[in-house]
Amino acid sequence: MQKPLLAVSMGDPAGVGPEIIVGAWSSKRVQQWCRPFVVGHPDVLRAAARLLGGRMEVVEIDSPDEAEPTQSLIPCLRSGTDLALEVSPGEISARAGQAAYDAIVLATDLALSGRVEGIVTAPLCKQSLQLAGLKYPGHTELLADLCSASEAATMGYLPPDKDSLSPYGLGVVHVTFHIALRDVPGSLTVPRILSKARLADSILTKLRADGTRPHIGVCALNPHAGEGGLFGQEEREVIRPAVEMGLEEGLDLVGPLPTDTLMVAARDGRFDGVVAMYHDQGHIALRLMGFHRAVNITAGLPIVRTSVAHGIAFDIAWQGRAQPTSMIEALRVAGLLSSPSPQPVRDALSPADIA
Amino acid sequence: MQKPLLAVSMGDPAGVGPEIIVGAWSSKRVQQWCRPFVVGHPDVLRAAARLLGGRMEVVEIDSPDEAEPTQSLIPCLRSGTDLALEVSPGEISARAGQAAYDAIVLATDLALSGRVEGIVTAPLCKQSLQLAGLKYPGHTELLADLCSASEAATMGYLPPDKDSLSPYGLGVVHVTFHIALRDVPGSLTVPRILSKARLADSILTKLRADGTRPHIGVCALNPHAGEGGLFGQEEREVIRPAVEMGLEEGLDLVGPLPTDTLMVAARDGRFDGVVAMYHDQGHIALRLMGFHRAVNITAGLPIVRTSVAHGIAFDIAWQGRAQPTSMIEALRVAGLLSSPSPQPVRDALSPADIA
Repeated sequence: MQKPLLAVSMGDPAGVGPEIIVGAWSSKRVQQWCRPFVVGHPDVLRAAARLLGGRMEVVEIDSPDEAEPTQSLIPCLRSGTDLALEVSPGEISARAGQAAYDAIVLATDLALSGRVEGIVTAPLCKQSLQLAGLKYPGHTELLADLCSASEAATMGYLPPDKDSLSPYGLGVVHVTFHIALRDVPGSLTVPRILSKARLADSILTKLRADGTRPHIGVCALNPHAGEGGLFGQEEREVIRPAVEMGLEEGLDLVGPLPTDTLMVAARDGRFDGVVAMYHDQGHIALRLMGFHRAVNITAGLPIVRTSVAHGIAFDIAWQGRAQPTSMIEALRVAGLLSSPSPQPVRDALSPADIA
Repeated sequence: MQKPLLAVSMGDPAGVGPEIIVGAWSSKRVQQWCRPFVVGHPDVLRAAARLLGGRMEVVEIDSPDEAEPTQSLIPCLRSGTDLALEVSPGEISARAGQAAYDAIVLATDLALSGRVEGIVTAPLCKQSLQLAGLKYPGHTELLADLCSASEAATMGYLPPDKDSLSPYGLGVVHVTFHIALRDVPGSLTVPRILSKARLADSILTKLRADGTRPHIGVCALNPHAGEGGLFGQEEREVIRPAVEMGLEEGLDLVGPLPTDTLMVAARDGRFDGVVAMYHDQGHIALRLMGFHRAVNITAGLPIVRTSVAHGIAFDIAWQGRAQPTSMIEALRVAGLLSSPSPQPVRDALSPADIA
């Protein structure tokens, strides 16, 4: 079986991106799941390889089809300029932002032109992007722009875990995200809720790869799901109608459910997906359930894209302490989503996969 | 050292109250922490004892000072009528509501008159209370009424755990609780936030019992704590001013902090208390961190009162499956709060305490 070819954008050179890429590369399973190469500066990667003990060779390639990765060899397609070599760990700077941007632009171009099956992105720093004159609120908006996609959205995905969660993992989408809590109730509409439920269904169905549909819980907005209208009307007016329309379309939805109990049920494996109404509702649960393993999956783009769910982590960057778990999972999930003959996601990573 | 005398109200006879009381009684540690007796119907308790194997004797007493509890003997002060014996498991009925009410009224009277040091309550059923003509939204409001207390509030408390949390446990108070999310931003005021922070500080300081002050995180309302005003102004306008006033009074507060990361830090033991702005913000985290162990502590009453944090659990009532963990913790915490020479809470329960 042909393994999917994936471009890994190096991320901000001042952050943990380069070292988590090197750390993930030495996983045997990663090399079984996909055929990855890095887009970025080879000498930055070489510095990260030295930091982690130096057993990793970085080989520059001229085109994606030359990539022959192994557990001890990283093919790297050069992007950007040598200014990336002047970036210090943890430094917020225009040159760091520009280097991160150049890597994403090249990786995205390769995916849009069909030369790779998908992309995986290491974290970038918003402030450095802005210093470089690139005014995007975040990674997702930048990618939407590069892909001319009008509506991109992110799913936080926790892969299967041996102690908890559904055997297919758990995906959480948010109906509203980076807005004030005050503006949340007025931003909830039937089409918006339904569109996020469809998105969760379509990504999770693809990840299951066994023809079954994911079981998705839809959060209430109010405590106790409004206690029959006593604490708010949004459950009756918008959430329930959206759930009913989704059910008619064939989605496997339940809700609106009181969020505190829904999240415990999801942690205990009784749901495959959750539609959260606002940022903290989903994120408090995702982080408590194991954010270090979480992967972001971007939907609504014409290309497959996953990323680590954590940030640049300047506080520990270039100390060799950053865990590559989320990068390993991001590579696995991108491989699953971009494979022509997908295998089900039904496996938890074992410690041996990470070693 | 004199052990505090505690009255345990039996709760709704159709729910899990009687069996969790019997289950908790056989814990050796419970009998070391306090001198408890039950207020309720002795024959209902006897039925629960038979359900759990019959090794527990129930002895009726005529006054609290006669209580000589042991691991195999429950002193019971009778409340209510024999109608309690006609209640079926899981049944919503006026007679069940009346029995639960009669037990709470007697237990509260004993505490108000100084004949017991505190009370611990098993769960009741709101609908059954209402069928009995007693229109209270919940336990706390009923107790506030019985005690003529104008402002009672509940802290959700997770006792210390060997794997996570502060060695003193974690207490969560809510600034708003049973209201629509839409009404939350407008309900946040500096005095309300400050009053809940003081409440958390005073209960947790008492529980620590070693002269140190609890370290309390104050939640932001908006995602990323508003990202510098980009997603909302409440952090700047009300939460930060409340935190600053609290600091001036000597409270050990930090905030407003983004709630998703604050809750992970609290789970990891870096906070002793959290002030949440609304119901789900606190409850999603509390439930994921271990709600089966959680205890509710009611503040603002002239008496010490704790309760289990779970409900009547009609789905498993009278099947011998209900876990007594929360009742054991509620007895421990009531004992700590009502002891004349309090011992620090710094111990996790071991499995042996529960066996």
